[in-house]
Amino acid sequence: MSHPLLEKHRATLDGALNAIRTRGYWSAYNEMPSPKTYGETAAEDGKKAFEAHLGKQFGLDQPGQKGWVGGEQSPYGIDLAVQYPVCDHEALIAAGQRAMVGWQQAGADGRTGICLEILDRLNKQSFELAHAVMMTTGQGWMMAFQAGAPHAQDRGLETVAYAYREMSFVPTETVWDKPQGKNPPLVMKKHFELVGQGVGVVVGCGTFPTWNTYPGLFAALSTGNAVIVKPHSNAILPAAITVRTIRAVLAENGIDPNLVSLCVAADRGTTQKLVTHAAVKSIDFTGGNVFGQWLIDNCRQARVYAELAGVNNIVIDSTDAYKPMLRNLAFTLALYSGQMCTTSQAIFVPAGGIETEDGHKSYDDVCADLAKAVSGFLAKPEVAHAVLGAVQSADTLRRIEMADSGTLGKVVLASTKLENPEFPNATVRTPVLLACDVADEHAYMEERFGPISFIVKVADTAAAIALSERIVSTHGALTAGIYSTKPEVIDAMTVATMRSKVALSINLTGGVFVNQSAAYSDYHGTGGNPAANASYADAAFVANRFVVVQRRFHI
Amino acid sequence: MSHPLLEKHRATLDGALNAIRTRGYWSAYNEMPSPKTYGETAAEDGKKAFEAHLGKQFGLDQPGQKGWVGGEQSPYGIDLAVQYPVCDHEALIAAGQRAMVGWQQAGADGRTGICLEILDRLNKQSFELAHAVMMTTGQGWMMAFQAGAPHAQDRGLETVAYAYREMSFVPTETVWDKPQGKNPPLVMKKHFELVGQGVGVVVGCGTFPTWNTYPGLFAALSTGNAVIVKPHSNAILPAAITVRTIRAVLAENGIDPNLVSLCVAADRGTTQKLVTHAAVKSIDFTGGNVFGQWLIDNCRQARVYAELAGVNNIVIDSTDAYKPMLRNLAFTLALYSGQMCTTSQAIFVPAGGIETEDGHKSYDDVCADLAKAVSGFLAKPEVAHAVLGAVQSADTLRRIEMADSGTLGKVVLASTKLENPEFPNATVRTPVLLACDVADEHAYMEERFGPISFIVKVADTAAAIALSERIVSTHGALTAGIYSTKPEVIDAMTVATMRSKVALSINLTGGVFVNQSAAYSDYHGTGGNPAANASYADAAFVANRFVVVQRRFHI
Repeated sequence: MSHPLLEKHRATLDGALNAIRTRGYWSAYNEMPSPKTYGETAAEDGKKAFEAHLGKQFGLDQPGQKGWVGGEQSPYGIDLAVQYPVCDHEALIAAGQRAMVGWQQAGADGRTGICLEILDRLNKQSFELAHAVMMTTGQGWMMAFQAGAPHAQDRGLETVAYAYREMSFVPTETVWDKPQGKNPPLVMKKHFELVGQGVGVVVGCGTFPTWNTYPGLFAALSTGNAVIVKPHSNAILPAAITVRTIRAVLAENGIDPNLVSLCVAADRGTTQKLVTHAAVKSIDFTGGNVFGQWLIDNCRQARVYAELAGVNNIVIDSTDAYKPMLRNLAFTLALYSGQMCTTSQAIFVPAGGIETEDGHKSYDDVCADLAKAVSGFLAKPEVAHAVLGAVQSADTLRRIEMADSGTLGKVVLASTKLENPEFPNATVRTPVLLACDVADEHAYMEERFGPISFIVKVADTAAAIALSERIVSTHGALTAGIYSTKPEVIDAMTVATMRSKVALSINLTGGVFVNQSAAYSDYHGTGGNPAANASYADAAFVANRFVVVQRRFHI
Repeated sequence: MSHPLLEKHRATLDGALNAIRTRGYWSAYNEMPSPKTYGETAAEDGKKAFEAHLGKQFGLDQPGQKGWVGGEQSPYGIDLAVQYPVCDHEALIAAGQRAMVGWQQAGADGRTGICLEILDRLNKQSFELAHAVMMTTGQGWMMAFQAGAPHAQDRGLETVAYAYREMSFVPTETVWDKPQGKNPPLVMKKHFELVGQGVGVVVGCGTFPTWNTYPGLFAALSTGNAVIVKPHSNAILPAAITVRTIRAVLAENGIDPNLVSLCVAADRGTTQKLVTHAAVKSIDFTGGNVFGQWLIDNCRQARVYAELAGVNNIVIDSTDAYKPMLRNLAFTLALYSGQMCTTSQAIFVPAGGIETEDGHKSYDDVCADLAKAVSGFLAKPEVAHAVLGAVQSADTLRRIEMADSGTLGKVVLASTKLENPEFPNATVRTPVLLACDVADEHAYMEERFGPISFIVKVADTAAAIALSERIVSTHGALTAGIYSTKPEVIDAMTVATMRSKVALSINLTGGVFVNQSAAYSDYHGTGGNPAANASYADAAFVANRFVVVQRRFHI
């Protein structure tokens, strides 16, 4: 009775359902670009598939097409020159609404099965997607592969599992049989139909065009909605590849492919008309506060799931692993040039310094040693390029230059420009580290997206924990960290993060980093502080995207 | 390891969990005021407990008390004269926030167990609550007992069950063990803490001060939030009794009773300050569009769960049970003088009439026969008073008079004033039935709360179904009905209600009525049309009221 694609992918679904319940380690898609998993020719085939898009028109056969637009600039300086269809947003919305009827009729099992097939097909395109992500975002290759393909697919699958759990909890029918004492019972047959709320718009970001798009995309899609993907203007290709594959799988399975479309807007006015359209009932957004707040304020007809700016922070109280701590922090600050929504921006160190297994370290020692750790870690060019990638936007470049000028704090590690021999036109910068006083709130207490971090001198650990709580509560954060050898300090930080509602990483000194969030196990964002009003992924992320329409009659 | 109160009430919780999964008939609390269930002296004791409140100050021992206020006017014309504490809303919020810490530490099991104990204790007060509901709202006795006590308790329990399902799905801890090929695995211990979003405000309505309050109250409470109940100014007593019992059970179990408080505002400004307070993170509201929309527009810091106005409607195409249909409709229109958010307001009848087992009935026949059915049903005064109750507000009385004047349509059944021998000062009116043309949208296409219904002449059944869909989509509805002997008509109405997202009752001719919504089985509202942005109860009603705050460290 179940959908054949649900049966085909049943083990994957069951694995994901078990993973979200137990939240241990699990993954459906291999994060290693291994020929054993992906095929001996996958790497080469994927690269060729990516290159075949360059300089071409990327056709999608969508309704209402009125032209082509391109203009993506690769942070690696290569020429992309892909053209994408520009379609009338009204035509995309109307076509999506029409397609929703058949999608509703597919039922929870059918929708889930087809979403699982889509994810499987996207997984097979992992190399192609990884190149597209790398070249549009500036991520290093390994990160582009992992975060751009299997990890993004895992996040998509995670929301499909949550959606399936909620949808399958609602019975399709029941018999309601109410005793009436000595009289015959009242008996009714009731049917319960799951109906998507309407068209969902997923607004992509320029740094993680798949990882931050797939959760909202698959949450809205699997719960019965049409989805219009509005990519960031500089990271269209990964979204376009994704949408093309989705449309192909839908069509193969008898679903109108116009259920999912790509809306590349030639101007901001079109985007605004799209997101404020009465038929649009959900908007998923990752990005800055200005447009995010505009969406929240103006798209009152829709539920807006927004991941916005924040000030991620770390409190250093003490450690029994000083050098491993510095290495761990150095990796976090350098990874993808700090262009992650989870990168730590403010590191709080007591004015009196910290105790370590290597003796007392003054505040200035910590600044100097962290600077040394970062520069040491990036000393080998091949490591530096693999980790840093390239700078994604001119805005980030300007922020780096401003930080480097010393106007925001004392420069303890200056940014340097690196030449990437493989990509001579790539924009590569090493991180800036600034030292500043706790009073310099204007400097460190707003998000400065990019490889810019502050080592903030605070009175003592208690003040640091209180400051962390205040920052998270008022400015938001996706990640917080604490280094301490004292249980009472860790307890105090734990309680503070429960009040401010942020995930806490404790004493990371090995191969896990504060900026990493593992699908099925780590909740990405809590939905309880200003950095995000939703979490990837939980029941709240999916439950409001569909309604139950019942009918009842006597039998 | 589990909380003793969870163990005490485990069977009740399991019953509710099974009921929301299967949605068959189930109830935890007997809807019949039976001495066997409630005790031989329960009826008398409950009446005395109610009477003991009259003319007295209703102490609650809340912080920030600065005076007393009363002024409830009974629709039955009896003198209530209860005085309630007026407390500074800032003091209530601050005290609620402090109390949330211990409530969070109680964990999902502790919170659920205590909520189950509260509901059990409220159930034992069913007679007292029923009198308080009856005398403040004007409901008839049996309805006040059922909807005011056991049915409200069932709706409360339903949300506790949904909340428990979501909370217990999140593991309190896990071990994350990620293989690293030939290297040792990365192993982390992770803890997951459920944290309430903040203070919840539940704004009560004047007609169903428990049934429409308990879902939001118990949803917010069980998920870890403080709750401030802001009752309707004319239906305070049922809320005050409820809050007093909750506070007593909390204190008995070591929880600061200020977790739940009653906020009786002496003026509208205080209410506005309360609901827009930064600490208030959820608002549950049932009532009119003006204040409801104000809440949605102004309380941007909170999630607003709002049940607003709608235009419930019924399409009559044909029937093979003409008289039973008329009797069923007559009961719906008369029950509690139509003062239910689920009462049908617009009945669509084809201009060419309808086919019945009793031959063809013209539009005028249907109007006349329905009028006769209502007046016949209410012919016996004891039936009339039991069913009609009394008119709750002066506004409803004015609407009845306006409808009666004929300005909104042709009066096919005039409202009459009845004398209630038991309550000589009661305000009792029978329903008004108006006939109007489909073009008179100004008349029937806005909610006219109270015993005012329109029999609208439409071109044909197809036009009626299209009109129903348009009304639900644009003005909202909690209920829709269809009478037809033709499967294709029922199918067309079914598809229309899926598009407009409203619950459909088909061919009700017996002991179930379109305005009835059974806990655990019927979703009250879909959350998908303008009449309500949430449903009682589903996962979406509870999932956003708490967040998961995690911490992780290597082991």
